[in-house]
Amino acid sequence: MNDSTTNYEPPQVWVWNKESGGKFANINRPIAGPTHDKALPVGQHPLQLYSLATPNGVKVTVMLEELLALGHAGAEYDAWLISINDGDQFGSGFVEVNPNSKIPALMDRSGSQPIRVFESGAILIYLAEKFGNAMLPIEPARRAECLSWLFWQMGSAPYLGGGFGHFYAYAPFKIEYAIDRFAMEVKRQLDVLDRRLADSEYLGGDAYTIADIAVWPWYGALAKGLLYSAGEFLQVEQYKNVQRWTEQIAARPAVKRGRMVNRRWGDPASQLHERHDASDFANRTQDKLAPEG
Amino acid sequence: MNDSTTNYEPPQVWVWNKESGGKFANINRPIAGPTHDKALPVGQHPLQLYSLATPNGVKVTVMLEELLALGHAGAEYDAWLISINDGDQFGSGFVEVNPNSKIPALMDRSGSQPIRVFESGAILIYLAEKFGNAMLPIEPARRAECLSWLFWQMGSAPYLGGGFGHFYAYAPFKIEYAIDRFAMEVKRQLDVLDRRLADSEYLGGDAYTIADIAVWPWYGALAKGLLYSAGEFLQVEQYKNVQRWTEQIAARPAVKRGRMVNRRWGDPASQLHERHDASDFANRTQDKLAPEG
Repeated sequence: MNDSTTNYEPPQVWVWNKESGGKFANINRPIAGPTHDKALPVGQHPLQLYSLATPNGVKVTVMLEELLALGHAGAEYDAWLISINDGDQFGSGFVEVNPNSKIPALMDRSGSQPIRVFESGAILIYLAEKFGNAMLPIEPARRAECLSWLFWQMGSAPYLGGGFGHFYAYAPFKIEYAIDRFAMEVKRQLDVLDRRLADSEYLGGDAYTIADIAVWPWYGALAKGLLYSAGEFLQVEQYKNVQRWTEQIAARPAVKRGRMVNRRWGDPASQLHERHDASDFANRTQDKLAPEG
Repeated sequence: MNDSTTNYEPPQVWVWNKESGGKFANINRPIAGPTHDKALPVGQHPLQLYSLATPNGVKVTVMLEELLALGHAGAEYDAWLISINDGDQFGSGFVEVNPNSKIPALMDRSGSQPIRVFESGAILIYLAEKFGNAMLPIEPARRAECLSWLFWQMGSAPYLGGGFGHFYAYAPFKIEYAIDRFAMEVKRQLDVLDRRLADSEYLGGDAYTIADIAVWPWYGALAKGLLYSAGEFLQVEQYKNVQRWTEQIAARPAVKRGRMVNRRWGDPASQLHERHDASDFANRTQDKLAPEG
């Protein structure tokens, strides 16, 4: 604890200070809605994805590549890059698909009326159900376990990304209390996963499901020290079962492809800024996941 | 920005300081798993709920009361109080139902083998599907919209509870940067909801769904100034459509009942510590939601 923070008294009414906010201050606002008119591009496939290869984006591109690998031709997709640092998520077309102005956002144009889906977890369920409950069990106990871990990811990762990652890596100065609070929670989360994966090959049980697809881009990257350069700080090597599971999933061909889509950092050969056809992956090579918020 | 926080340098390896953590320091740990052996009670109904009337707990008791109001006798439940400040969530029986040690947790004992479900969002989907997709549309566009808003709540509320609420109300001292960061995000979230509810009676469209059941306990309480005493600070009155929707949902009889279950604060007549039968609500009266994280 330090005196200067102790002495702070919040005002009666919060006021927007546009100077604050750290690395992402330019894209954080207290109001929603579009900032400018801009239509989204539309390709020829049934599914149009507007995204970026952050962990939340990678969930969906892995899912789509897994569906294609299972032979679901209806999962063919165009993936368009949304540059969040440039404010693409505040364009009028994007806000119509996701009023929350976050990636990923999906438009399904396969039917008579386009269907919008936003939030990565909702997109995973939507796609699983669209393709015969692919990677989402229908037997009640297995489905409950899969959904429990899927929602665990949604409720937990904000403490990893918006909490730990922000205060450890992105805030304009280091606040001991905040780093300590979120480091403790993230280590607890890693231990929750580690204990589950000691008893079970995958999160949902003995089969790979959308729960693994949701958790892996966040906690797998963290376990390999690739998020926020925090591997040593959080001693991620000690979570042996998370390590085993992370490597097992990373070896899947669809996962290797999905990681490259809408990626614009790391080795240039690992970046596929837009994806419109399976042949787009030709001559691409794997790279380690690089940190991005 | 202040000099003393600026000068902090995180160590190479994070170390658990058991003194830190603010109001809930005694229940936050960097490790998972049980701390003591304790079996959970089991009542006579098919569904056994282990919970507390925080916003995440209220989601499930409202859902169960709505299902009973719709005539689904199979939704009869016993609701048991989990005292999180006393560490009940770290008992061995609770951890078996929810390895993440958070309320709410549900055991469905209606079949030959009990089924566990954890995370409030997973429980809402599980119950909706168990009872014929009650309050969860099956038509694809409506289902996608409902799921999108359901997941919006899961990914957003950690910024409200674990972020804003913690730093504004519970942390041992006030940190301007953290309060500012999370106040901005919470106001953005309220504006996202307000714009949606300007166009739509309910979040999922023209029908009440599990998306409303998930969002209302958090953002409805916030809109009425009942979370963290932050109504004036966040100027919640300005979100007129959120206000309209909040009152509309609060008037539902099942919502009035659900709010009282596992509640142990506010007017004693509004508290139903355990719920085992519909007659338990006799002579109970409504109270305003009181803040509890």
